[in-house]
Amino acid sequence: MKLLVINPNISESVTTLIATEARLSASQDTDITAVTAAMGVAYIETRFEALIGAYAVAEQIAQNLPGHDGVVVAAFGDPGLMALREALPVPVTGMTEAALSTACQLGSRFSIVSISPRMRGWYLDSVHSSHLSSRMASFRSLNERPSSVATVQQDQSERLIEIAHQCVHEDGADVIVLAGAPLAGLARKIKHRLPVPAVDGVSCAVKQLETLVRLQPNKATAGSYAGVPVKPNQGLSPEMQAFIKAAALLN
Amino acid sequence: MKLLVINPNISESVTTLIATEARLSASQDTDITAVTAAMGVAYIETRFEALIGAYAVAEQIAQNLPGHDGVVVAAFGDPGLMALREALPVPVTGMTEAALSTACQLGSRFSIVSISPRMRGWYLDSVHSSHLSSRMASFRSLNERPSSVATVQQDQSERLIEIAHQCVHEDGADVIVLAGAPLAGLARKIKHRLPVPAVDGVSCAVKQLETLVRLQPNKATAGSYAGVPVKPNQGLSPEMQAFIKAAALLN
Amino acid sequence: MKLLVINPNISESVTTLIATEARLSASQDTDITAVTAAMGVAYIETRFEALIGAYAVAEQIAQNLPGHDGVVVAAFGDPGLMALREALPVPVTGMTEAALSTACQLGSRFSIVSISPRMRGWYLDSVHSSHLSSRMASFRSLNERPSSVATVQQDQSERLIEIAHQCVHEDGADVIVLAGAPLAGLARKIKHRLPVPAVDGVSCAVKQLETLVRLQPNKATAGSYAGVPVKPNQGLSPEMQAFIKAAALLN
Amino acid sequence: MKLLVINPNISESVTTLIATEARLSASQDTDITAVTAAMGVAYIETRFEALIGAYAVAEQIAQNLPGHDGVVVAAFGDPGLMALREALPVPVTGMTEAALSTACQLGSRFSIVSISPRMRGWYLDSVHSSHLSSRMASFRSLNERPSSVATVQQDQSERLIEIAHQCVHEDGADVIVLAGAPLAGLARKIKHRLPVPAVDGVSCAVKQLETLVRLQPNKATAGSYAGVPVKPNQGLSPEMQAFIKAAALLN
Amino acid sequence: MKLLVINPNISESVTTLIATEARLSASQDTDITAVTAAMGVAYIETRFEALIGAYAVAEQIAQNLPGHDGVVVAAFGDPGLMALREALPVPVTGMTEAALSTACQLGSRFSIVSISPRMRGWYLDSVHSSHLSSRMASFRSLNERPSSVATVQQDQSERLIEIAHQCVHEDGADVIVLAGAPLAGLARKIKHRLPVPAVDGVSCAVKQLETLVRLQPNKATAGSYAGVPVKPNQGLSPEMQAFIKAAALLN
Amino acid sequence: MKLLVINPNISESVTTLIATEARLSASQDTDITAVTAAMGVAYIETRFEALIGAYAVAEQIAQNLPGHDGVVVAAFGDPGLMALREALPVPVTGMTEAALSTACQLGSRFSIVSISPRMRGWYLDSVHSSHLSSRMASFRSLNERPSSVATVQQDQSERLIEIAHQCVHEDGADVIVLAGAPLAGLARKIKHRLPVPAVDGVSCAVKQLETLVRLQPNKATAGSYAGVPVKPNQGLSPEMQAFIKAAALLN
Repeated sequence: MKLLVINPNISESVTTLIATEARLSASQDTDITAVTAAMGVAYIETRFEALIGAYAVAEQIAQNLPGHDGVVVAAFGDPGLMALREALPVPVTGMTEAALSTACQLGSRFSIVSISPRMRGWYLDSVHSSHLSSRMASFRSLNERPSSVATVQQDQSERLIEIAHQCVHEDGADVIVLAGAPLAGLARKIKHRLPVPAVDGVSCAVKQLETLVRLQPNKATAGSYAGVPVKPNQGLSPEMQAFIKAAALLN
Repeated sequence: MKLLVINPNISESVTTLIATEARLSASQDTDITAVTAAMGVAYIETRFEALIGAYAVAEQIAQNLPGHDGVVVAAFGDPGLMALREALPVPVTGMTEAALSTACQLGSRFSIVSISPRMRGWYLDSVHSSHLSSRMASFRSLNERPSSVATVQQDQSERLIEIAHQCVHEDGADVIVLAGAPLAGLARKIKHRLPVPAVDGVSCAVKQLETLVRLQPNKATAGSYAGVPVKPNQGLSPEMQAFIKAAALLN
Repeated sequence: MKLLVINPNISESVTTLIATEARLSASQDTDITAVTAAMGVAYIETRFEALIGAYAVAEQIAQNLPGHDGVVVAAFGDPGLMALREALPVPVTGMTEAALSTACQLGSRFSIVSISPRMRGWYLDSVHSSHLSSRMASFRSLNERPSSVATVQQDQSERLIEIAHQCVHEDGADVIVLAGAPLAGLARKIKHRLPVPAVDGVSCAVKQLETLVRLQPNKATAGSYAGVPVKPNQGLSPEMQAFIKAAALLN
Repeated sequence: MKLLVINPNISESVTTLIATEARLSASQDTDITAVTAAMGVAYIETRFEALIGAYAVAEQIAQNLPGHDGVVVAAFGDPGLMALREALPVPVTGMTEAALSTACQLGSRFSIVSISPRMRGWYLDSVHSSHLSSRMASFRSLNERPSSVATVQQDQSERLIEIAHQCVHEDGADVIVLAGAPLAGLARKIKHRLPVPAVDGVSCAVKQLETLVRLQPNKATAGSYAGVPVKPNQGLSPEMQAFIKAAALLN
Repeated sequence: MKLLVINPNISESVTTLIATEARLSASQDTDITAVTAAMGVAYIETRFEALIGAYAVAEQIAQNLPGHDGVVVAAFGDPGLMALREALPVPVTGMTEAALSTACQLGSRFSIVSISPRMRGWYLDSVHSSHLSSRMASFRSLNERPSSVATVQQDQSERLIEIAHQCVHEDGADVIVLAGAPLAGLARKIKHRLPVPAVDGVSCAVKQLETLVRLQPNKATAGSYAGVPVKPNQGLSPEMQAFIKAAALLN
Repeated sequence: MKLLVINPNISESVTTLIATEARLSASQDTDITAVTAAMGVAYIETRFEALIGAYAVAEQIAQNLPGHDGVVVAAFGDPGLMALREALPVPVTGMTEAALSTACQLGSRFSIVSISPRMRGWYLDSVHSSHLSSRMASFRSLNERPSSVATVQQDQSERLIEIAHQCVHEDGADVIVLAGAPLAGLARKIKHRLPVPAVDGVSCAVKQLETLVRLQPNKATAGSYAGVPVKPNQGLSPEMQAFIKAAALLN
């Protein structure tokens, strides 16, 4: 199985974190191709940056999809996830959706632990998009945006552990979701220090994608996830044009 | 007041419909600038086309915002609305959100009447994004995607009236939302033939935007709608780079 | 356009606050008629007082409607709003519904700031009536009912600003709703001191009503907002009898 | 135990139906005082008529409460229920709330069977007020408002039985709620012909009230159901003034 | 009327508390048979213990039902309630469902006060099962599991009163639900010290059951609460086999 | 990896269906132990049968757990799932929860296709337990309980395909959930004849369990999924006593 894992922001250091955790989580016969958005910002923490990230992911897919059995959108908030699920002939998963789906099979209520207070509102919106707000115990984060996303998980691991304990003891969380690609891999490092299971978006997205690929669901040809209809377009890259033409052929 | 109304698809004929209805609805002292996406598809009816449309709208804003007091995203489904609300120093409204907000002040439950059955799932998702699913009576549409979005409202007006009556008499709708930019202006033509109020996305988006502009809300400098933080970026058009820099200065 | 703005309580001083803000918010060609309930209590802060207020508003409408293009119910909690929407041939808005509808176009989550802790439960019920509970970040209020509703916004403005900051920084509010007619006009005075947009019920109700009047929705003749059916009645004032007869004719 | 059962509309024939069922349902040591609104309309089927009914109920309470241990608001839609619960020193129940509370202890989902299609929207709003919309299977009604509310249950019993079967077999109802005071007593007559339990608003409201009276809950002196605060009033009947003064003393 | 009240745990001392409160609450002509589970644990505070309790209750019913008009499942969390409602020819109530149904007729929002912090998650799940999560103000409990469930209500009454006050003043509760069979009877002892009504699961379950028995609902023969279909079984006690055969005959 | 798959009903033929699909779905290095409940009924289609099934599953676990890395509860409706998740030191999945979690990563809305109309109400309750009711498009089933659960998938496959098409074209389903252990394996046989992806409970439960086992979440030692507390018990099988003692040691 060959999976395309796309970092929707432009930071190669974050792609490295993602790729490492993806490979640690993947089954032995799974190959991971990790790519970085060619356009966008260093780190996505707002809805607007996610808008750009969604388009950047689509471009990466248009260029890199052939030969892959599934796609991971590797940023929390899942930029473009539903749209890509519609257009792609293969399954696609996202870090938030996969983490929540997994967490909800480990307990009744989850808390999200994030590296930046700015994400609070947008993450609440993301959880609402998954219709799982009523299973959310709380959102907690570091008090300040970290100076370096590449090293935040080392720099702040003690503080993040403390926050996770508050989620359990004060907010009633049964599961902790460590949110955001910069925390990729942290769950496996600190889980023995937490009193409840902790899940990581990257590993959940990879494992959930492996499941979807193995189940070999057929591509929808009716309903709202059928391929995109054929219609005139303009101003798109040649790769995107080819991709849209292919998506239309799915119908 | 000067409003920038952006058609997220590339059809000039749809922009004309939008602009006409926008000007008919606007107050006397409101000027409407109507622009068409430079990239994208002829008509948005899927989540993937909306993903492209969202980026195309952002580009239009980056190029055309100066001198405007507010922005309308003039496609149903509101591509990019929340993201643009975050990044812009001026208010922004969308056809779906504005139509639902207005409809909910005219009755308890609304039905959405659309020109294509394909929109069903995506529109349900859009209503969910507004947290108003429990006020939705039904979605109904023409049975087939129309051959021409430019003339669908003339070609199909009798069928659309019939569908609206079903929404009232079978589904319990108190208000009809005529959905999609290709139906811009239809509400004012057929409302005397409907047994309940009908709202139109373009006129609602323009009027709601006029209200927001007149109320002169200050731009958020905290919370999840504060301007976008400063951070490195790449691969963006010069206009987009300038726009992001300006958005960051809002904080 | 001529709008009838009704204070459902008997305090002329509150009517003055309402009328002043209504006129400051209205378009140039909008005339505001502000009237005070002839029966009821000095200030509505309970469901029971709202029950009386609802009836008092209906009486005022029965006496004063002719010549007006729309009605504002100018108390938070919107006493009688849905009932009046059913019976009236013209649009009607309320302070809570209009403030929430407007707030939800400025951000994802709002907090309500109120002058009395007593309102907490009833306001939560009111937000539930609008189906917008899942967009509410918090309710906060002064600790004690103010000694004077006429001067509370001057007396307590510093404390109210402080409370609004707590809503943003502790509760995650994207927008502040300054609730209650006694706070009419405060938003425009303190908004520059708040980190997120603040909305005021009176100005929102007037602007939303102007929008509804301009859109000229037809009166429902079917569904649950059609005019009230003809049937025997007794014990009503002559004006109310005439009003009901007129409402029945709408069908 | 002495219960005050108030018909919020002016039809003595409906009061007779209500009183008969109330007495059949009540425990042996329960006395029922049945009174009819002095003001209002012949039959409540709209939100506006309920607004008047709510005020009329409050007047009846102001005149007749002394000596009673509890109050039933005997119209579907429960005009003024929450407000009266706040103001009264004794428990108060309503036909809708009591019927739904009882139905939800007999099965997972209920359907409402009503005598008029007009009630659909308002009843949905009433169920939403009880936060039980997600347990509602369907609303069904006669196709036309009945010519006589006094005899509708005899005239239409076969049709109502047929409708109830549709609720079970097509909509998945576990319990049938026969709605509206004009159907008072019908459940006990037709229940042997229905495949699921059927509940009647009047009997449920009486039994639930007996329970609340027997449990002897103390009157709230804090929170949103504490008695109504003391404040100036005007334009109210002497009985209502006395009642409000008494309600204030509850604090 | 003869009611079977079943303690799903094995503690006779708790059965005594339950039986005492049940008899104090019941009408004069109601006889209470109180039985204790023959299998299970000393006190149910987890979902797993409730799983065992549900089966133990079914066994008790299989052995003791004949001659009874209704059944109370006398543990919070209502082990097996919906299942038993399906299988039994007579009404069945549970402590949680009955307490919430009663509380919701006394105010808009309730808080649950419990003796063990462990119950938090499971009780939230139980409230969700009743679809009443949106009416829950808070859950609060003692900080530690009590050393003796038989004496916890005496040992901890002052602390429980303090917690109830926090629910009202900090969380906005209109009603307090004193949860768990070990607190049976406490509400009547401390209610005069609380600022809002307090309800007790046992008394609510008995009174709600008396109501259901008096209303004489017919047993469902269709829908999801019809008796259990006939089919082969094995490994069950002779009493359970007989009970299942009887349940099948209900159809 | 060694997984214990438990059929909560007593039909060996159904266990065979389950085991076959479980082994087809599992990874190469996964061993499946399939066991059948020793007590219970031939086929679970009611809440009461699920109550018995839950206890029967617990007994099977008490006897067979050692040496396994995870447990699948292999009946739709997931009898005892949350309780077992609490008590077990290893992950546990259920057919409904796993199927819904997987379906929600393939589209926005799912329909459930079942073999018996009786399941409708209980399955709706099960979906509510997962908090996913708002993502359910519809429930549809065969009109009659099948005469043989062992052969229903062959006997009725054409009818089931037809029903699935109705779910897509009439109800708007993006994904079909083929519900119930007797349909185990049908999805892989008929998926090429369906216009949207179809998921099967057994394969989803196995794949989701493999994911949970691979992620190696630590067992909760706090919160509502910590192991069951130590306390006296009686009337339990020796295996169950040993199991409970082990569960308590998890804390």
